[in-house]
Amino acid sequence: MRDIIVVLFDGFETLDVFGPVEVLGRMTDAFSPVFCSLQGGVITSSQSVPVMTESLAVQTGQYILFIPGGAGVREMIQDKAGITAMKALAMNAEFILTVCTGSILLARTGILEMRRATTNKRLFAWTSQFPGVTWIQKARWVKDGKIYTSSGVSAGIDMALGFVSDLFGSERAEQVSREIEYEWNRDPDRDPFSDWYATPQQIGKG
Amino acid sequence: MRDIIVVLFDGFETLDVFGPVEVLGRMTDAFSPVFCSLQGGVITSSQSVPVMTESLAVQTGQYILFIPGGAGVREMIQDKAGITAMKALAMNAEFILTVCTGSILLARTGILEMRRATTNKRLFAWTSQFPGVTWIQKARWVKDGKIYTSSGVSAGIDMALGFVSDLFGSERAEQVSREIEYEWNRDPDRDPFSDWYATPQQIGKG
Repeated sequence: MRDIIVVLFDGFETLDVFGPVEVLGRMTDAFSPVFCSLQGGVITSSQSVPVMTESLAVQTGQYILFIPGGAGVREMIQDKAGITAMKALAMNAEFILTVCTGSILLARTGILEMRRATTNKRLFAWTSQFPGVTWIQKARWVKDGKIYTSSGVSAGIDMALGFVSDLFGSERAEQVSREIEYEWNRDPDRDPFSDWYATPQQIGKG
Repeated sequence: MRDIIVVLFDGFETLDVFGPVEVLGRMTDAFSPVFCSLQGGVITSSQSVPVMTESLAVQTGQYILFIPGGAGVREMIQDKAGITAMKALAMNAEFILTVCTGSILLARTGILEMRRATTNKRLFAWTSQFPGVTWIQKARWVKDGKIYTSSGVSAGIDMALGFVSDLFGSERAEQVSREIEYEWNRDPDRDPFSDWYATPQQIGKG
């Protein structure tokens, strides 16, 4: 049994978090999601979801660190205490999962240096601020060792199922996907949205 | 601007709620999600998500009623005060949206009598308790007048995008689906999971 330390901040993107939490949280034999924030208390997503959180604390034992993206990343990335706390948690995590611009926050900790990673396709230009990371533009998700990063929002569901598949085999991932009546995109390299947002006329749109 | 009155209860299914909330909640010009429960306070999903709620109250003005499913439905369906409150809200709602076994709760209010509806495919047998409803086994979602019901869990995302399409046109729905990097299943009749769960050897599995 592994705790999943889900780091929340005001303006996190709702589905970045609750897609993967649906997948992993229903595997009660394997995972236990814990919702945390720097100060604890109620944290509200960009889509007005108020979630009760515990304050971030040093973790002992086996845990997974989960970092979502969202409009709140712009503020969170300036928060030195928050970045320091995330880095400390990242250093000792068994696995790290990020969705969307959560990988920008992880990059800010320095943990992604010399690693392959991806992020939201609409905001891909942001990656130029972290040239030490090998950013993959066309990927639904990227696995580099113990670190999984996904594309925007709903890509987190595919990544979470890929993570389940890596840990427990593809049959378990398929079982979960059927339970939630979700057609799993199991190919991490299949990414129709990278082309869409890479087309010049789309830049700044959407 | 319409409030979306999201009815939560302990043991609601995480993605039933937060898939559609992602879609509708990011359309800040059109929708404003409000999270409610019978008594108010913290309500926890089947996947351990603690959400802060307001207590259910009579609504005035234009609003949409949203009812999710989940393991907690088995208890909620016995809760006379809860069913009565949902019925009162349903009677005056401009639209009603349910995901998964949320339609079983709505059936319990009597509102679905003589209507077409669908529900979770793994628990479809439950529908036999409500023979006055025309249950559609093969459907990603069903629209009957102002009432939208969807299949299990992730089907709610497709239904929410269909609802956006009906209200604001398909281009707006496609724009939202691209923003969340989601491949929208826009055909309400395309339902690969109905066949899966209808196969006798699968009954009781998954």
